[in-house]
Amino acid sequence: MKVTLLAGGTGGTKLAHGFTLLDVPVELTVIANVGDDTAMHGLHVSPDIDALLYTLAGLIDTERGWGIRDDTHTAHDMFERLGEPAWFTVGDADLATHAHRTRLIREGASLTDATAAMVAALGLTARILPATDDDHRTMIETDAGEIAFQDYFVRLRQEPEVRGVRFEGSAQPTPAVLEAITDADLVVIGPSNPMVSTGPILALPGIREALGEAVAVSPIIAGRALKGPAARMLASLGHESTALGVARLYSGLVDRFVLDEADAPLAPAVEALGMEAVILPTVMRTDGDRAALAAALVELSRPA
Amino acid sequence: MKVTLLAGGTGGTKLAHGFTLLDVPVELTVIANVGDDTAMHGLHVSPDIDALLYTLAGLIDTERGWGIRDDTHTAHDMFERLGEPAWFTVGDADLATHAHRTRLIREGASLTDATAAMVAALGLTARILPATDDDHRTMIETDAGEIAFQDYFVRLRQEPEVRGVRFEGSAQPTPAVLEAITDADLVVIGPSNPMVSTGPILALPGIREALGEAVAVSPIIAGRALKGPAARMLASLGHESTALGVARLYSGLVDRFVLDEADAPLAPAVEALGMEAVILPTVMRTDGDRAALAAALVELSRPA
Repeated sequence: MKVTLLAGGTGGTKLAHGFTLLDVPVELTVIANVGDDTAMHGLHVSPDIDALLYTLAGLIDTERGWGIRDDTHTAHDMFERLGEPAWFTVGDADLATHAHRTRLIREGASLTDATAAMVAALGLTARILPATDDDHRTMIETDAGEIAFQDYFVRLRQEPEVRGVRFEGSAQPTPAVLEAITDADLVVIGPSNPMVSTGPILALPGIREALGEAVAVSPIIAGRALKGPAARMLASLGHESTALGVARLYSGLVDRFVLDEADAPLAPAVEALGMEAVILPTVMRTDGDRAALAAALVELSRPA
Repeated sequence: MKVTLLAGGTGGTKLAHGFTLLDVPVELTVIANVGDDTAMHGLHVSPDIDALLYTLAGLIDTERGWGIRDDTHTAHDMFERLGEPAWFTVGDADLATHAHRTRLIREGASLTDATAAMVAALGLTARILPATDDDHRTMIETDAGEIAFQDYFVRLRQEPEVRGVRFEGSAQPTPAVLEAITDADLVVIGPSNPMVSTGPILALPGIREALGEAVAVSPIIAGRALKGPAARMLASLGHESTALGVARLYSGLVDRFVLDEADAPLAPAVEALGMEAVILPTVMRTDGDRAALAAALVELSRPA
């Protein structure tokens, strides 16, 4: 069974991990958000791809949800001494990832090629496809002007009110991405921020049309995001900061919408949007939780 | 007093440090060998410039003579995991240096500019000038073919017999380098390997002509190099592997040649080459040794 998951950020990454833990294996392709990509110390950083690589390789710092467990920060101190912008505290092993990716790209690889090489080197079974190989930067409009996503997310610690979200560039999805969506037996929009994690993927031309029957998992549970600024961002962009608000954003795009058990009362309102509401436990604290959610999603899509 | 020192490798670097320790300060300019420069993990590595930066900033790993003291090697392990060529064990802080330099150069700085920025960031008082901003690679001819210097020096641990040394490219010295030589009150060719450390500098067009009155310090003491392959390389290239062999290589280039006390018996043969032989303690074990040698060289050049 071919599963294609659109993911960015912590929730989508955990669900990707869940799909790799199933007793009956699935062919998993993860389409990764690249709107957060940035240059740091002259190196190409792909935060969402890295979170996927590290999580699936068992290297992730689970406390922080990004970076590598037990990483050291010796390079960071030297960067500071040399006067490099150091608002992003890069770990040493993480720096190796960025340098490796940058070398591959400078030598002519696409981001897709570079990611495939890293997936192979780390011995992962899932495919990870960057949503696009083109420049496709998530720009955040704030009261103090428009800034790049990492400026908002890391440097300014998500403090500014988000007044708008825009994707810079005229990026196209790769052929592999479109094929992974159209060929899949199950397409899942992961429990990721709909504005800045799955949004940049869905904004690429042709993606919405390719989706077919898809299922989305709400990243909002009982009015809160488990991690990150999704709830506040929904509100400041004029949406309801509930699972229903997310369902409205995906209206017309998906056939099923997964709500957490805590949000069961929202099911009728979701169904009124023309999608099937599915109630499942969606909080992924343990590997077991991740696998259970993935298994339930697989089950959903099996012919009765 | 303006002192310009041609340096590469450990001996020249220690002497540079000595000049910065003098009671009566000198304006020191170090012209650094770049023939060892290489690309590692897609980053621009300048081993001799780094040894100078780290030594003058008090960061050098004195045990090894290169790299940064107490550096960690977390990135190296990740590079190995990702399948990067890992025969060079780069430290994490060292990696920051390489990434910083590479970023500056990619953004348009010359190697000279990038080095000046690093000298300033580290608060050094000496100037460090790369001998050239052009490609100028030391190539080592061995029985198994021609290889780049770092391949010979690090990867193959200096095991192959050296059959020849060649500098690739048509590099020009920078104007700053030529000016530092012609403007200096004292020009010193440091106690560095004459074939692969000072040789690449002296091979640049116009350097030999600019030298004027110069003094060289022998890197060979009692037939041995204190560090590195200089003695064996002299022999395999058909030179005498003694201070006299080095003096012959500098014949016609320098007015004075400094021999270690252990080599006092060679003084007449050195003088027969048409240069003044100066006997000094040249072994630099301590900072005091370094300063004493630097002070003696300054003293030499003072008008009587």
